[in-house]
Amino acid sequence: MIEPLDGERADHPTTDLDEVVHQRHRLGILTIAAETRQAEFGYLREALDLTAGNLSRHITVLAEAGLLDIHKGYQGRRPRTWVRITPAGQAALAREMATLRALLSRHDND
Amino acid sequence: MIEPLDGERADHPTTDLDEVVHQRHRLGILTIAAETRQAEFGYLREALDLTAGNLSRHITVLAEAGLLDIHKGYQGRRPRTWVRITPAGQAALAREMATLRALLSRHDND
Repeated sequence: MIEPLDGERADHPTTDLDEVVHQRHRLGILTIAAETRQAEFGYLREALDLTAGNLSRHITVLAEAGLLDIHKGYQGRRPRTWVRITPAGQAALAREMATLRALLSRHDND
Repeated sequence: MIEPLDGERADHPTTDLDEVVHQRHRLGILTIAAETRQAEFGYLREALDLTAGNLSRHITVLAEAGLLDIHKGYQGRRPRTWVRITPAGQAALAREMATLRALLSRHDND
């Protein structure tokens, strides 16, 4: 058992994780959006194995946090929704990845 | 925009994440428990900056999933609660870490 020293700030890497980004489906949406110029709703649904309602809810959370932009338009005659990662989204994803890297590095050094 | 090929299973790494383990506080509890023979409740609360109620709820989720054992006893005259990671917990944490490593490696290769 490890006991903290008086006044020591334990600062475990998981305390730096942001739940808006860390939630697994949102992490999936953001990483795919970061890989592509824009990601189409149906593609995300397939890639992440989500229902339309579930994907829509997670995209809304990310858009309201300013991490994604949502664009609606047409591909031929078919209405389509695309998402793009914002600069704030790229920064938030980079922070998440840095924290996960710290967690893995701590774990590997056990 | 990436379009999936017909019949292609997209298989994004985040679809392999288990929400019981991936939730950031539970990931913190499991990684600390994996680092120590046993972790004391008050220590976890401090290290993860959680309220007693919140920590207790997450420990219960992990114990009900068979990933942690909970032990109650005394340290001197003070009642104490300790948690230990189970073999199933170690396996689940190893899967989480492997998936995070795959996610980071995919992200780094963008």
